[in-house]
Amino acid sequence: MTNKLPYYVHPAAIVDTADIGAGTTIWAFVHVLNGVSIGANCNICDHCFIEDGVVIGSNVTLKCGVYLWTGVTAEDNVFIGPNVVFTNDVRPRSKNKDFALAGTLLKFGCSLGANSTILAGVTVGRHALTGIASVVTRDVKDYALVYGNPARQHGWVDEQGEKLHAAAEAGQWYSLATGQRYREAPHGLVPETSLA
Amino acid sequence: MTNKLPYYVHPAAIVDTADIGAGTTIWAFVHVLNGVSIGANCNICDHCFIEDGVVIGSNVTLKCGVYLWTGVTAEDNVFIGPNVVFTNDVRPRSKNKDFALAGTLLKFGCSLGANSTILAGVTVGRHALTGIASVVTRDVKDYALVYGNPARQHGWVDEQGEKLHAAAEAGQWYSLATGQRYREAPHGLVPETSLA
Amino acid sequence: MTNKLPYYVHPAAIVDTADIGAGTTIWAFVHVLNGVSIGANCNICDHCFIEDGVVIGSNVTLKCGVYLWTGVTAEDNVFIGPNVVFTNDVRPRSKNKDFALAGTLLKFGCSLGANSTILAGVTVGRHALTGIASVVTRDVKDYALVYGNPARQHGWVDEQGEKLHAAAEAGQWYSLATGQRYREAPHGLVPETSLA
Repeated sequence: MTNKLPYYVHPAAIVDTADIGAGTTIWAFVHVLNGVSIGANCNICDHCFIEDGVVIGSNVTLKCGVYLWTGVTAEDNVFIGPNVVFTNDVRPRSKNKDFALAGTLLKFGCSLGANSTILAGVTVGRHALTGIASVVTRDVKDYALVYGNPARQHGWVDEQGEKLHAAAEAGQWYSLATGQRYREAPHGLVPETSLA
Repeated sequence: MTNKLPYYVHPAAIVDTADIGAGTTIWAFVHVLNGVSIGANCNICDHCFIEDGVVIGSNVTLKCGVYLWTGVTAEDNVFIGPNVVFTNDVRPRSKNKDFALAGTLLKFGCSLGANSTILAGVTVGRHALTGIASVVTRDVKDYALVYGNPARQHGWVDEQGEKLHAAAEAGQWYSLATGQRYREAPHGLVPETSLA
Repeated sequence: MTNKLPYYVHPAAIVDTADIGAGTTIWAFVHVLNGVSIGANCNICDHCFIEDGVVIGSNVTLKCGVYLWTGVTAEDNVFIGPNVVFTNDVRPRSKNKDFALAGTLLKFGCSLGANSTILAGVTVGRHALTGIASVVTRDVKDYALVYGNPARQHGWVDEQGEKLHAAAEAGQWYSLATGQRYREAPHGLVPETSLA
């Protein structure tokens, strides 16, 4: 840390907020507006733009070229791949100041694959994973794997992004790597906490 | 306006043209080359690049990360979403100085959704709307709504981007919000001007 | 060349390597890290980012907004269109320092169309061409033309990017423009060197 702040800002970045947690790094050609909140231990790579009102948790990664508009919220441990594109207006017209802002919620630990596009109003569930170039037009369930244009669900993943396997019991899944079991609920998978 | 010009240029932008209309704002990390013409009341967001010869009308919005190449023309009131990608060569090869430049025309009031890709040579019609991540390989008619890869037409929209409804008469459409009627012509819809 | 180096660096670029060949140009808001190797006569357009360990040959073009991660190699004469997106981790999770890096190899003379997305681990063959917005999830053969999401092969192209025509003999192709003939091999086309 070269600038005596508990976080690092590259000399070629423009950062207009001081609401940034310890250990966060902000790299070159990044522009963060006033009114943004960023947690601890985040990594904001080159060429990102973050608009006022955006809230970013801790341990969040923004790869290069990510632009976050007012209305986007990223919970802790979210990964946003390079060139992932957000929106906050489903019927954009130039100079329309009365547009209906629609937010985007990225829940704990989810990952958005490179060059994914996220339609305004969508929620991406906990630990969900969108494949590269996904066009996400509907909510994504917790632990879901989605990809395509438009993005469809193609199974489930664990916290490390590995695909889950179907258990003998209907609606149950397990991780080959960790042995963890999960059961389906309306909003996606829930990890089993039993000792069995 | 901090710099006594009738338009605003952020200190971290590089603007090599003075052919810019009153009220236009140009934000950080934007690079506009000499030989570019920009109208009044435009908004050029962070991280855009505009090559020589590009002509932009008035009331045009470029969201972040839009790169306009020689051959692109945007008429008044055009909206270009974040990361919309243009081309001017359909068979690109490195160091080929003899490539056939193909232009792109964006007509009055059209909107290009976030992360759309526009093939060189295409015209997008008046008030047309391309959905997010559209891959536009053919001309888009006036008032058309298109999306997908490749982009196909899925109906019509009005000046505000709302979907139109089919009228009882074949080839006629109307806006539920405004009552405006439109009829189909070879190049797309034409608003009816009758008082009926 | 304004800076007495055999290559040109725009004043608004940040270049931390000196391993750059003669005649190469690096434009505004580009960031090249230490440990990068760039050949001669390359053109690195605005807003690019190149991470340590990347190796770029000679006569390579990077259009605006290209981010090259550790593990990407571009041989001579490669064209990378605007907003082409690379990855080096197929299961990205935030703050995962133990991810398995997968490289990307771009072979001599290939072209990646605007806004293509390249999955980590892929090789793109010599003189191959990916259409705009291709989502490349598998290796691409020499001289192949691919596009779509996911990208599928739709024929073959010559060194100039023109589509090849099927010859009378099975597995043979020719260029209408140059008369050059090619035959199919497991890794793609091979130009015939016979005088016939």
